[in-house]
Amino acid sequence: MSSFSAVDVIAAKRDGATLRDDAIVWILDAYVKGDVAEEQMSALLMAIFFNGLNPHELLTWTDCMIASGERLNLQGLSRPTVDKHSTGGVGDKISLILAPLVAACGAAVPQLSGRGLGHTGGTLDKLETIPGWRAFLTNDEMRDQLERVGAVICAAGQGLAPVDRKLYALRDVTGTVESIPLISSSIMSKKIAEGTAALVLDVKVGRGAFIKTIDRARELAATMVSLGSSHGVATVAQLTSMDQPLGRAVGNALEVTESVEVLHGRGPLDVREVTLGLARTMLELVGIHEDPAAKLDDGSAYEVYRQMITAQGGDPDATLEVAELKDVVLSPQDGIVQSVDALNVGVTAWRLGAGRARKEDPVSAGAGVMCLVREGDYVEAGQPLFELFADDDDHLTSGRESISHAVTLGEEPARGGRILLEKISAK
Amino acid sequence: MSSFSAVDVIAAKRDGATLRDDAIVWILDAYVKGDVAEEQMSALLMAIFFNGLNPHELLTWTDCMIASGERLNLQGLSRPTVDKHSTGGVGDKISLILAPLVAACGAAVPQLSGRGLGHTGGTLDKLETIPGWRAFLTNDEMRDQLERVGAVICAAGQGLAPVDRKLYALRDVTGTVESIPLISSSIMSKKIAEGTAALVLDVKVGRGAFIKTIDRARELAATMVSLGSSHGVATVAQLTSMDQPLGRAVGNALEVTESVEVLHGRGPLDVREVTLGLARTMLELVGIHEDPAAKLDDGSAYEVYRQMITAQGGDPDATLEVAELKDVVLSPQDGIVQSVDALNVGVTAWRLGAGRARKEDPVSAGAGVMCLVREGDYVEAGQPLFELFADDDDHLTSGRESISHAVTLGEEPARGGRILLEKISAK
Repeated sequence: MSSFSAVDVIAAKRDGATLRDDAIVWILDAYVKGDVAEEQMSALLMAIFFNGLNPHELLTWTDCMIASGERLNLQGLSRPTVDKHSTGGVGDKISLILAPLVAACGAAVPQLSGRGLGHTGGTLDKLETIPGWRAFLTNDEMRDQLERVGAVICAAGQGLAPVDRKLYALRDVTGTVESIPLISSSIMSKKIAEGTAALVLDVKVGRGAFIKTIDRARELAATMVSLGSSHGVATVAQLTSMDQPLGRAVGNALEVTESVEVLHGRGPLDVREVTLGLARTMLELVGIHEDPAAKLDDGSAYEVYRQMITAQGGDPDATLEVAELKDVVLSPQDGIVQSVDALNVGVTAWRLGAGRARKEDPVSAGAGVMCLVREGDYVEAGQPLFELFADDDDHLTSGRESISHAVTLGEEPARGGRILLEKISAK
Repeated sequence: MSSFSAVDVIAAKRDGATLRDDAIVWILDAYVKGDVAEEQMSALLMAIFFNGLNPHELLTWTDCMIASGERLNLQGLSRPTVDKHSTGGVGDKISLILAPLVAACGAAVPQLSGRGLGHTGGTLDKLETIPGWRAFLTNDEMRDQLERVGAVICAAGQGLAPVDRKLYALRDVTGTVESIPLISSSIMSKKIAEGTAALVLDVKVGRGAFIKTIDRARELAATMVSLGSSHGVATVAQLTSMDQPLGRAVGNALEVTESVEVLHGRGPLDVREVTLGLARTMLELVGIHEDPAAKLDDGSAYEVYRQMITAQGGDPDATLEVAELKDVVLSPQDGIVQSVDALNVGVTAWRLGAGRARKEDPVSAGAGVMCLVREGDYVEAGQPLFELFADDDDHLTSGRESISHAVTLGEEPARGGRILLEKISAK
């Protein structure tokens, strides 16, 4: 392998040059080995934040991340594999419904998930509120469950793209998270290493998402779709709106309960709409012509959900308790709800105890927010807007402080904004 | 003191925001204490490379660097204090002549200097080729010598702007050296802490300097002049050309010998011209109306030089030997010298052993280059262009390889470029 100077590689990117393939291979390898120091990599990441990576550089960068670890082999299953990844939203419990639903339609969904950090919750945190459920499976257990049940939601093993774990921890403390090439390579290296044949990306855009504008969402989506396609993964991105929370429930157990409602053909319509939209795109990618709506309404998706939870040790019949302390936020006046700020609600759920500030923090199972109104609703003074749940007074007080400006009232009628926005496919 | 999150400060600068005073105070203090990690500071430095610091931010940043250590008090001396700082050039031995010259005219020159890194030599490395001479003085010794002799060139104590030492070491390995606010605060924090009442900055611009264009030199000069003035130091910047080496000698002992020639009223005219230009500006700043040219020609500057060397234990009469191995580079053809590439000559001297790659490396006293021709000279095939000196064959071979393209021959007559370019004063 060629040898480079870290300073030369950093300075080249800083000055807008294109990095040579062997320079990228060298610096990521040297970083994993500790020959390139954390402070050198963070300087390079910041230079990439400003000057980007061109498509070829990004491809090489992502290849190196994949090659840093193992790559699962999901070939030879009797069902086609298709996964979904969301960039993260408030009240985003879609995976819990979508994985069993798409499995009920005949595909296999190998969903390797993460935990939440900051104001968006993590799928594993939600499922861990189910007594007995375990997030960690061996590769063999995962493959076996995929064949037998058709759906797995479990923790990504330490062996997948390990350099991403090191880079992500560094980005998290150095202000270099919000870079499209770095986000794209982080997400796609893990999804490609996971071995899925097809992938639908739910790119959230709006107040409650980390991507605030449609242009940036398009750029991120196109970058990830291109990376997937280049690696032989059939990839489509669905842009979805994240201005107000998805559904009514925001919090770990609260969201599991709401997901089960949707799996019974009930529940909030926006959750159902996003789930079905993503399910149709996933099924299309693997050539399955089933109507997912019917699988929600006839109980077959719920049946797969039960199998999926049971296979990982969980009790699908357990009652999930909400947190002990409750508070109700009332509307101060009459009016039409102009907006429910998803970021504000997400931060409130986090302050109530549902999320974590650092990755080693515990989360509360029963804390969170129930959103009782949506954009366009007419409310009267004194009508409940939110229910807050927390395990203790400090968390409840902290949550109550942040929720007070979450709803804006006015006189304008509902705008009726769509949730499913554009779809972006490979060129 | 307010408490901040390092990530928030980094992200603010990354996104082009102005940092609050208390955020700057906090992050530099936390960095010194180790609460802000090296990888966080390097990310911030790279963000500053891209987004800069506005004048107020830079003032606060520099204030913090000064406040991180001691500030010398040079008040109460019988002479006015005035110092010079050069941004570094090839063959730049001006300090060795200028300090005693300006002292001979009646000022006190408290020059705290550094060692060389890369292709430009360091003043201390040059003086240390004089037997017995020592670079380290206590603050009291320095003050006493200033009063008695009028000139001191010594190592900057560890107590001056210690955060700069930590920042400089970090910038050196993270590709964040070449940033005007970071360069300016690094230089000016030390010069202000040194306690001089007036300061002339020799800002080198050209092939052999790290600033290549006049626009960037103007920007750096104006930034430093403004910082000095804001701290009550009367500051003027002199831009000087660094396309070809200054004088004929490039190397530690070689440059001391050449400096002594100039102190005797002889030596290369360009060295004399730059020295006198800077001396006149320094004297003007402190209101001394002496003619420095006369002090070179009548031997009084040399007399102060002898006192300055002797006061620090050195033997001014010692013969400084050149390195044992010598090679002569001959002109391959007839022609007029179009250029002598200062960077190329600097790198050659460094490869011959005169400079260091890492700050802990030793340097050779006698190695270096003698430049026998200058721009505009007519040379014949076979005529000597350079003499190379090294302690061993490896260094000699290495230097010979890099010198081969240093001289460009052609048919154009000399352009007669000026060396003393613009002067930049406080507005």
